[in-house]
Amino acid sequence: MPVGTQGAVKGVTHRDLESVGADILLSNTYHLYLRPGDDLIARRGGLHKFIGWSKPILTDSGGYQVFSMASRRTIDEQGARFRSHLDGSAHLLTPEKATDIQAQLGSDIAMVLDECLAHPATPDGRAIARASMERTLRWACRARDRFLSLRDGLVPGVVVSNPGQAQFGIVQGSLFPDLREESARHTVDIGFEAYAIGGLSVGEPVDVMYDMVARTTPNLPANRPRYLMGTGTPEDLVESVARGIDLFDCVLPTRNARNGQLFTSEGKLNIRNARYAEDDRPPDPACGCYTCRTCSRAYLRHLYVVNEINAATLNTLHNLNFYLDTMRRIRDAIVFRRFENFRVAFLESLSRQPLDS
Amino acid sequence: MPVGTQGAVKGVTHRDLESVGADILLSNTYHLYLRPGDDLIARRGGLHKFIGWSKPILTDSGGYQVFSMASRRTIDEQGARFRSHLDGSAHLLTPEKATDIQAQLGSDIAMVLDECLAHPATPDGRAIARASMERTLRWACRARDRFLSLRDGLVPGVVVSNPGQAQFGIVQGSLFPDLREESARHTVDIGFEAYAIGGLSVGEPVDVMYDMVARTTPNLPANRPRYLMGTGTPEDLVESVARGIDLFDCVLPTRNARNGQLFTSEGKLNIRNARYAEDDRPPDPACGCYTCRTCSRAYLRHLYVVNEINAATLNTLHNLNFYLDTMRRIRDAIVFRRFENFRVAFLESLSRQPLDS
Repeated sequence: MPVGTQGAVKGVTHRDLESVGADILLSNTYHLYLRPGDDLIARRGGLHKFIGWSKPILTDSGGYQVFSMASRRTIDEQGARFRSHLDGSAHLLTPEKATDIQAQLGSDIAMVLDECLAHPATPDGRAIARASMERTLRWACRARDRFLSLRDGLVPGVVVSNPGQAQFGIVQGSLFPDLREESARHTVDIGFEAYAIGGLSVGEPVDVMYDMVARTTPNLPANRPRYLMGTGTPEDLVESVARGIDLFDCVLPTRNARNGQLFTSEGKLNIRNARYAEDDRPPDPACGCYTCRTCSRAYLRHLYVVNEINAATLNTLHNLNFYLDTMRRIRDAIVFRRFENFRVAFLESLSRQPLDS
Repeated sequence: MPVGTQGAVKGVTHRDLESVGADILLSNTYHLYLRPGDDLIARRGGLHKFIGWSKPILTDSGGYQVFSMASRRTIDEQGARFRSHLDGSAHLLTPEKATDIQAQLGSDIAMVLDECLAHPATPDGRAIARASMERTLRWACRARDRFLSLRDGLVPGVVVSNPGQAQFGIVQGSLFPDLREESARHTVDIGFEAYAIGGLSVGEPVDVMYDMVARTTPNLPANRPRYLMGTGTPEDLVESVARGIDLFDCVLPTRNARNGQLFTSEGKLNIRNARYAEDDRPPDPACGCYTCRTCSRAYLRHLYVVNEINAATLNTLHNLNFYLDTMRRIRDAIVFRRFENFRVAFLESLSRQPLDS
């Protein structure tokens, strides 16, 4: 899922997104709640109508942004108290509130509010991780209750913009396999339309992340999508699918594009590098996206160096196409029962030519 | 002509430009000369290949940007000495050099280097204007000589990237009708593929500008395009066509779009205005552009307020479509011999509802 934080993927129009085959967008509840506000969006008929995107939208719970503002928030059993990064105003995000906001936004998939720990390096990390995982379970119960009450029209004052909205539970448990397993089992017991793995990609070694994924997915229903939140590199996509994941979101393709980093079939390419000043080749000769069909590395470098907005647009289009194409290739490989061959060939090609080393 | 200063129209891809019917781009010699350099662009095969735009390109002479840097340039008969706004390096722009650079860029239309005066409000304005106009004529002779030498392959060290390039002369003469007439006659005597009117839209009252245009065009060949440089508002387009102009360039639609100002069939609309926060209508209900087909004023205001790049893209797309559509309507009206009716109706519609007054 491309990330459209504030109801738009930075630098690319919806039409451009459709041209690279984006079938679902992620949007951030925290940002939309503050501006323009979920009330305003509900009055517009929901997020789809407001932003003019008719395909699916997933919204996060807002928790991740709140927990990231270490100095501006406090957490207790009720929820998270925080101050807006815009005007300092005080807010309380509870499991119920996060569910209400997403009901008003009317996304197709809403996420429960979970407590997202940083990578726990302290000696008492295990106790902290257990307490946090258990709180996340209690919050998940409250979020599911609220979701069902909203669905039944029992919450006055909250507009349910999308009656067909689904709600995903989130597995926590830090880097402790047994906590992950316990979290998964209890979250599935609560009963959601599908399940996500949260609290990874937060600084732990990549092998540890893969291991946590591998130990969690067997505890999640095989007939429901499994969503690994906030991940990752192209390699992460392939390695996580190998361990049972179906759905991802990540700012890497879009954010790195704006910083001039292109993902290609031969590895990463930093377009601001002087070596590309006179390079007439497309960014990725193996790619069929608009950027690769029409722009040379020399032109893209020029646009980046002179600080043109179009650099962001063209780089983002390519990176999103590369990510979505990777997922298309994964799906094809699975259908044709060639996933293991694909996986080996893909990882090899990425390291074939270290473009910028 | 949309303005693509550095080889790109800010915020919109070439594909987007084609979708609003742009048939020719203007690009700025001053900027491309400094970055990435006309030598580099010539080595890429010229500006069309470098930027991936196969339709016509007009380049200015670079003079306007140099003359605008009052404190960083000096002018004498030879040309204009200036310091780069990027690194302070010293450069000399002569009529020959401006012609050489544009030959290397390989635009379809090159402009001669002219001296562009500010609106002369001093008592000796007439003498200054005459001297400047006469120098512009001498520069035009030198530029044409150089252009013909380049065409004949007589200038070693300069790459002629586009053998079919045309060169336009420029009429000066400030706000003195007789100087304008004299300038036009002598410029036509030198003999260019077509002619432009320069030195207007520099602060004079709009009626004075229209009058200068009306007094200049009769002295320019009717069978060659007449180009009014750096103009203007939608009203200016219609009023100038009424006085014999065929071709325009202006940053107004693109620059104002990035500042949130939309040109519509009912007048100007400042999308940042709070009154649009809950306005579900398209920016211009009479417009068929992508932005108007898919975005509400409320969404565009949100994107502008939260500082999304996409605000620039969507607003620019609309404004360019409005400008190009105005020119299409003008052409239709002329073909059907209804231009006067169109002109009256157009000017009336713009003032029908002062959207932001």
